[in-house]
Amino acid sequence: MFFEGSEKKLELIVTPRFLQSGQFAESAQFGQSGDNAKKGKNGEKGSLRQLGREFWQTVVRRANADILSTLSNGYCDAYLLSESSLFVWNNRALMLTCGNTRLADAACYLIDAFGEQNIAFVSYQRKNEYLSHLQQSTFAEDLKAIRERLAGDAFRIGHLDSHHHYLYTSSKPFLASPMDETRELLMYHIRGDAAEYLRSSTQSAATVRALLRLDTLLPGFEFDDHLFSPFGYSINGLCDDYYMTIHITPQENSSYVSFETNLPARGEHRLLFSKLLSILNPGSWDEIGFNSASHTEHYPAHLCLGSCELNLTPGYRVSFCHYQQLCHEELMPEPM
Amino acid sequence: MFFEGSEKKLELIVTPRFLQSGQFAESAQFGQSGDNAKKGKNGEKGSLRQLGREFWQTVVRRANADILSTLSNGYCDAYLLSESSLFVWNNRALMLTCGNTRLADAACYLIDAFGEQNIAFVSYQRKNEYLSHLQQSTFAEDLKAIRERLAGDAFRIGHLDSHHHYLYTSSKPFLASPMDETRELLMYHIRGDAAEYLRSSTQSAATVRALLRLDTLLPGFEFDDHLFSPFGYSINGLCDDYYMTIHITPQENSSYVSFETNLPARGEHRLLFSKLLSILNPGSWDEIGFNSASHTEHYPAHLCLGSCELNLTPGYRVSFCHYQQLCHEELMPEPM
Repeated sequence: MFFEGSEKKLELIVTPRFLQSGQFAESAQFGQSGDNAKKGKNGEKGSLRQLGREFWQTVVRRANADILSTLSNGYCDAYLLSESSLFVWNNRALMLTCGNTRLADAACYLIDAFGEQNIAFVSYQRKNEYLSHLQQSTFAEDLKAIRERLAGDAFRIGHLDSHHHYLYTSSKPFLASPMDETRELLMYHIRGDAAEYLRSSTQSAATVRALLRLDTLLPGFEFDDHLFSPFGYSINGLCDDYYMTIHITPQENSSYVSFETNLPARGEHRLLFSKLLSILNPGSWDEIGFNSASHTEHYPAHLCLGSCELNLTPGYRVSFCHYQQLCHEELMPEPM
Repeated sequence: MFFEGSEKKLELIVTPRFLQSGQFAESAQFGQSGDNAKKGKNGEKGSLRQLGREFWQTVVRRANADILSTLSNGYCDAYLLSESSLFVWNNRALMLTCGNTRLADAACYLIDAFGEQNIAFVSYQRKNEYLSHLQQSTFAEDLKAIRERLAGDAFRIGHLDSHHHYLYTSSKPFLASPMDETRELLMYHIRGDAAEYLRSSTQSAATVRALLRLDTLLPGFEFDDHLFSPFGYSINGLCDDYYMTIHITPQENSSYVSFETNLPARGEHRLLFSKLLSILNPGSWDEIGFNSASHTEHYPAHLCLGSCELNLTPGYRVSFCHYQQLCHEELMPEPM
């Protein structure tokens, strides 16, 4: 029953010039020639959305995943995948894949398809896996393939024997807006009622949404979710140009829940992370922010074991923190 | 500069009947026929030590390691290896190997060489590695090979995403004495003066021994140590039928120090672990005891994140604890 919940993450921004170019119009034309040409209907001039579902399905398949369903609004197409999510905005795509997928292959395909000169920014991020030896590539191998196409800096944050993350960012001249913020909450070893329900054999997507209190936590969002068999739950949500996504791998011995959003950690969303922590009660968790301020108000009693701040030349201030609940756990030996 | 310090560990006990048998006398004769026949000179009747250095060298080479030097007393031959240690007593062998070694191959070789019917007890233990994908086998593969020769139970203790240990023990009728105790202290991310010295380019074995205060901590022990180039230090020690061994992988990003002994955690040795912790100041550490009581007197401020007790049918009460110092660490991004 092992499933690798840890995600790989790709973000890609194209240049404004590319979207207005004849080269792009041609590609977009191709995208509109199929059945899924609806993305052009809003009449945007040069949008990655115009490439159409067929194009993005090819990208997704390069990573060894599939599109399960789609949610769209005026800003974004959110694809729920067999392994996580793909979001496509006018000039930006964000793709998360878990399991045994090959996201680096999709990254290379996109860079080749668009042309290196048309890329404004790429980041490729990878969480250390529960069982890394089962993966189809190492981060070092992914990095080599991406760097053959696009120069960039790469780092490991966190110790090898603890939770750690790998991050590549392209080194092209690009300056992100300070408002371009995202934050990730990666939770390990969830416990309590919600965790028990997520591991039970009679779940419904509506009950999972209610358990996670998504309507209260994220008012105004439209959702698209999927319950996997026998376990696992994924949801994408959109509200204007804000996105959210949650992926749950509930299995007792390797439980993992990821939450990610570009909602700022201010105002009504200030306590979003602490509310999710109180619902899912993880033994430990990581937070990764891009231009996102963090705080620990209303968090469970914890120790921040390690933290790191990185100022990347493309204008992203990356912060990483690994938290551990202040409690002792009786470990159950796992027979082999 | 990465070196996998985490060890695999094999313990094997043969039956008294085997040591007195003609089959054994023949094997031992073979051992004495070479240049290294000195182990028979004490005139023990039927001792694994009589198999001689040539036999044990073959075993060590099966694991892809080599013998660097030997220390002997009336009870035990202690071999310092290119990757850790081998101890041979009359009826028992204990082998630890780190790096990219294949200890399971040595285990299979020994079971085949002695004959399954002559084995009283085998345990095979493996720490999760810093970089498991670089290993030549997984524990599951090791387990399969050993179980094809000798039935046994196996467990994983600890979460997959944290420090964890795999333990196989044979299920033959065997009852260990409650006095048959060993304990392991496995230290991660050592810091401070001792750590700095161990990472420096001008070390001497004598200074490392002095840093570790081994003469004070372990009076009466004879030592045999080796300084590796450019880093790394190993030491075996013997005092009557007691052994100790320390292996140090000091590299900044994956530092690891293991200490293991069959000295009881009582009397003058009661504070051995706390003294080593204060010298090496690890960020986190594991303790594994076989029939060994543990206590945390004079430990640095810590949280015991997880613990486990296992009562094995061969008469070993195994205890596992993972400790974390109560402190926050500024993580340095590691460029890749």
